[in-house]
Amino acid sequence: MDSFGQFFKLTIFGESHGPAIGVTIDGVPENIPLDEEDFAADIARRAPGRKGTTARKEADRPRILSGTYEGYTTGSPLTILFWNSNVESQDYLKFDDVPRPGHADMTANVKFNFANDPRGGGHFSGRLTLPVVAAGVVAKKILKAHFDPELEPGQELPPGFERRDVRIHAELLEIGGEADKSKWDELLDKTGKAGDSLGGLIECRVEGLPIGYGEPFWDSLESLLSHAVFSIPGIRGIEFGDGFAATRMRGSEHNDPWGPDGPRKNGAGGINGGISNGGPVIFRVAVKPTSSIAAPQTTWNFATGREEILQIKGRHDVCFALRVPVIVEAMTAIVLADLI
Amino acid sequence: MDSFGQFFKLTIFGESHGPAIGVTIDGVPENIPLDEEDFAADIARRAPGRKGTTARKEADRPRILSGTYEGYTTGSPLTILFWNSNVESQDYLKFDDVPRPGHADMTANVKFNFANDPRGGGHFSGRLTLPVVAAGVVAKKILKAHFDPELEPGQELPPGFERRDVRIHAELLEIGGEADKSKWDELLDKTGKAGDSLGGLIECRVEGLPIGYGEPFWDSLESLLSHAVFSIPGIRGIEFGDGFAATRMRGSEHNDPWGPDGPRKNGAGGINGGISNGGPVIFRVAVKPTSSIAAPQTTWNFATGREEILQIKGRHDVCFALRVPVIVEAMTAIVLADLI
Amino acid sequence: MDSFGQFFKLTIFGESHGPAIGVTIDGVPENIPLDEEDFAADIARRAPGRKGTTARKEADRPRILSGTYEGYTTGSPLTILFWNSNVESQDYLKFDDVPRPGHADMTANVKFNFANDPRGGGHFSGRLTLPVVAAGVVAKKILKAHFDPELEPGQELPPGFERRDVRIHAELLEIGGEADKSKWDELLDKTGKAGDSLGGLIECRVEGLPIGYGEPFWDSLESLLSHAVFSIPGIRGIEFGDGFAATRMRGSEHNDPWGPDGPRKNGAGGINGGISNGGPVIFRVAVKPTSSIAAPQTTWNFATGREEILQIKGRHDVCFALRVPVIVEAMTAIVLADLI
Amino acid sequence: MDSFGQFFKLTIFGESHGPAIGVTIDGVPENIPLDEEDFAADIARRAPGRKGTTARKEADRPRILSGTYEGYTTGSPLTILFWNSNVESQDYLKFDDVPRPGHADMTANVKFNFANDPRGGGHFSGRLTLPVVAAGVVAKKILKAHFDPELEPGQELPPGFERRDVRIHAELLEIGGEADKSKWDELLDKTGKAGDSLGGLIECRVEGLPIGYGEPFWDSLESLLSHAVFSIPGIRGIEFGDGFAATRMRGSEHNDPWGPDGPRKNGAGGINGGISNGGPVIFRVAVKPTSSIAAPQTTWNFATGREEILQIKGRHDVCFALRVPVIVEAMTAIVLADLI
Repeated sequence: MDSFGQFFKLTIFGESHGPAIGVTIDGVPENIPLDEEDFAADIARRAPGRKGTTARKEADRPRILSGTYEGYTTGSPLTILFWNSNVESQDYLKFDDVPRPGHADMTANVKFNFANDPRGGGHFSGRLTLPVVAAGVVAKKILKAHFDPELEPGQELPPGFERRDVRIHAELLEIGGEADKSKWDELLDKTGKAGDSLGGLIECRVEGLPIGYGEPFWDSLESLLSHAVFSIPGIRGIEFGDGFAATRMRGSEHNDPWGPDGPRKNGAGGINGGISNGGPVIFRVAVKPTSSIAAPQTTWNFATGREEILQIKGRHDVCFALRVPVIVEAMTAIVLADLI
Repeated sequence: MDSFGQFFKLTIFGESHGPAIGVTIDGVPENIPLDEEDFAADIARRAPGRKGTTARKEADRPRILSGTYEGYTTGSPLTILFWNSNVESQDYLKFDDVPRPGHADMTANVKFNFANDPRGGGHFSGRLTLPVVAAGVVAKKILKAHFDPELEPGQELPPGFERRDVRIHAELLEIGGEADKSKWDELLDKTGKAGDSLGGLIECRVEGLPIGYGEPFWDSLESLLSHAVFSIPGIRGIEFGDGFAATRMRGSEHNDPWGPDGPRKNGAGGINGGISNGGPVIFRVAVKPTSSIAAPQTTWNFATGREEILQIKGRHDVCFALRVPVIVEAMTAIVLADLI
Repeated sequence: MDSFGQFFKLTIFGESHGPAIGVTIDGVPENIPLDEEDFAADIARRAPGRKGTTARKEADRPRILSGTYEGYTTGSPLTILFWNSNVESQDYLKFDDVPRPGHADMTANVKFNFANDPRGGGHFSGRLTLPVVAAGVVAKKILKAHFDPELEPGQELPPGFERRDVRIHAELLEIGGEADKSKWDELLDKTGKAGDSLGGLIECRVEGLPIGYGEPFWDSLESLLSHAVFSIPGIRGIEFGDGFAATRMRGSEHNDPWGPDGPRKNGAGGINGGISNGGPVIFRVAVKPTSSIAAPQTTWNFATGREEILQIKGRHDVCFALRVPVIVEAMTAIVLADLI
Repeated sequence: MDSFGQFFKLTIFGESHGPAIGVTIDGVPENIPLDEEDFAADIARRAPGRKGTTARKEADRPRILSGTYEGYTTGSPLTILFWNSNVESQDYLKFDDVPRPGHADMTANVKFNFANDPRGGGHFSGRLTLPVVAAGVVAKKILKAHFDPELEPGQELPPGFERRDVRIHAELLEIGGEADKSKWDELLDKTGKAGDSLGGLIECRVEGLPIGYGEPFWDSLESLLSHAVFSIPGIRGIEFGDGFAATRMRGSEHNDPWGPDGPRKNGAGGINGGISNGGPVIFRVAVKPTSSIAAPQTTWNFATGREEILQIKGRHDVCFALRVPVIVEAMTAIVLADLI
């Protein structure tokens, strides 16, 4: 199933080398201001063209097909479309028989009986994170309208309502284990020239979220966030607050004592019993190194039944983790929009 | 929402100090052999009484109320009940005003308007992992019936069907950062006497799973497993295959080349593009140290508006991670039963 | 699947001749007053013992196992149990081979591979409408708390909120085509003595519902109500407002003109474009005559491959439509509780 | 929510006077042959231009944006788009204040805070049944592939599998109460000239469906079919088999005795206990007369607070029931595709 969310329901559609990709969102509240310009900033953050990401020119302009009227959402389903262009599929044709190491070629072929569009990885392509980013923009707008609403003349806030500036920010902390950002350009160059690739470590923070988001059991806030984040291709781990380090701590060290304004430290990552505790929600995400590398790799040819040296052509990111922070933010916003 | 699963649907109900807890499962196939004895082994693995777990005697005997007939499931919903006993709620009454560090007292009170049963943490109690373990037993039976079916006389396996021994095994690798199991008893004794607690690191392996489980996008196998695992109270992180270490690897090092029998190493944890790749599925889970510790802790009294020293009485595990492996197995089995 | 509802989620469990039946409800708001006495009135309306319904004594006392604390709901799942008693299953054993006309014996056997509990129709029994009635009581309580809330001292209604007395009432209009209620006793006697059975026509009205319930497309109010009502065994039709008569009307005759207080007539049954229009919601439900009749019937014996005269023993309602109004009300309340 | 289905999941999007309408379908199996020509026949059956339907020229050509590759489905979500054209919205602008009798103007305005696109009824338009018909075409293809599969060379049918020709056919039995089809043209002319409109009665039959489709309780086949059918605008009732007439029958008259080849009559409409019984599934659907009529109607102006005579301009069907049979078929196919 390619759908997500219970109230803010997304279906991502399209293949990277078909005519278009996009997202249909059911459950968008009415009267949220939204036009095609609103997507530009986040899409630019995901876009290629920076060092370490591919040179491929993509058609990254969103087209809103439904669900808005004169710049505001109508409450009916929103469909956002991106036409594909710049399609070069010859590079991809041979991976049916010789699966690329680290890729979904093999699992997709077996699962979908070889029907999946072989060009560009089909529905598995990282290009599908583009409609995710678009959905994230919509979700951020919904959060803004909920926590910091525009009032019409004469309208008042409900009693007890407190405006909140809920901010989601994800940042790349390390690439290839290197935390010093001034060294990244050199590291990217060197690794790219060696035909190799790099992973990265991202931290995401949600500031300003009130107490009470998430459910005690199956839909704990950690469950929902991890579910969404592991939908991003190439994620290997997620940890909240003290994370894996907590396994080596004593309770007296890991516990968050309460102070008058919320938890005094944040070992729990802003979540207790599955529910946001009013402190910043903090989690880190492990991104693997790009699977497609220029260097030759030994793999298996299932047609000939023989080992084979595979050399992948085409344009690929040295470190696609550079694109991932805005996608993690989008996923986080999508989860929160589904909860409010 | 306290429900999980799309086809194998669970609703966990009950409070630790109410009359009973249990689970209702909708979507159990018919003709699976199941009786009350089948639960004994896994429930014993979760049970207290071992060093490092609480001395509390619990009513851990399951009662099947519906969904079976003469030892086989009927296809209609299965309800499994555990009566509560041995209830001592006085210890718990004061946590409304003085939330315990690391607990859900505060978030539950705000979210549920102080209605949640204050005795024993109500619906947040670790005791609710008991029906999860019971549901896991049912799920394991379903996996067995699917991958290694009993045949009736004259019945044959479908052409091309290959029997598989799908095994789920979770193991505690470390407690308090200590990997040498011979030192655990001493570490537990010492930490317990100091009124403190320990976390743990668990590794879970699924052997024998065929290629093809999980979906390319929102319901990747990692998404589903992490969603379920983060429902267990006290989990801080999850990582698959090389996990967080992958962020420091090059692609040439992390990629899994294919061999004739599947992936040759397992950096991806047995999953490519969200779909099982035929290799063992491997993930590690970080369990925090038990929140309830005997040592005095500084926290905030929201009734008096003053800092206060809190000393938690009652019986608590020094290291509840000791109980968690069988719960992780149950969650894994539940996810896989939902997929098949 | 035996679950219903998106926010107010029910799973009905149990077999009529197993140890117990019941319902688990996920999504009950907290702080709704609820105890076991609240169920008595509606359960009595469904109960046997009146003319035309079976003489069977049933254990109709509910036991709340979870989800309440000191007479109020806690927000965690509610499980309500009814122990079975008075079980006589011999009467039912033979229907595997000789399916009763009008019953689900045949379809259940094929669908569930003969695994379904043969005693008493198993999970298909009308006894399962008992937990539906119980869930309806909870749903009515939720509607009351929503539209006509109790205030705590010092608490005020939100600005603009108008208290509403939302009432759901279903009534039997006809049995066996007879609308004159004074003739029903005689008709029931006569039909019962003839070993035959009667159907009935029910009208349900929801008064006081505000504009806005239901969705324009898939989840139109008619869709949701009909979905729930057709879950009741033995329903043959449903119509809203002018219903089937509308097929013979002109638009000028069927249209509801608006007046200052809502629609001036109610040809649409209180619903426009799938959404409640502020007028009373009105629908009629066709209930078939009881399938189990004492008179001999010709049917087929699938074991012998021969025609056979079947005579059904045991106690059966002459007109189970007499029990259905409170079940229709329960279903309506469940749908509305899911919508608010 | 504008989504339907659990496995074959549809989201209908678009407004009749926005840039495009369409449907996104998640859960289409792979390898189903599908191209844009396949939609022509069913779309023509829904199309205007026949007597009694509007003269409006519509852009009824489907464009498949995703989910197919070289004429076969890939298993990833299918998006089918229809560009809008021929938009004349001035006619629709005034209905905010003066709601049309029988229309959703009022309920939509209240529910969606007047945000809904006022041009052409926005998301409430009958034009949205066009993507439903398209989804129905896909569903019929899935049924065909399931019950009557094409084999590849060397492939064999599974043992015990029996090919079936499952046919869904819906037919208009009456318009305005008139069953004699030779009189329909005259009736349509006369009613249209009088500025009035007509309703209709449709019967739908599913032939060839095996025993076993539908669930015993919440998702009875009647529940699922009625849920889908009441999503079509303007439906007032549905009845199965003997339908409302069953309320006046005796059990001995209504019961379906079994014969060697299935039920001997079809009082139950091919469904017992919520599950298809192997006989033809038969139901009738009541369609109201078109709400928009040329004749002047008295209604209420909510802006002026006064009664007002409303005269609706624009092109409207005299009897939109003429278009509905193919939509009922589509809904039926969608329900069955979701079940298999």
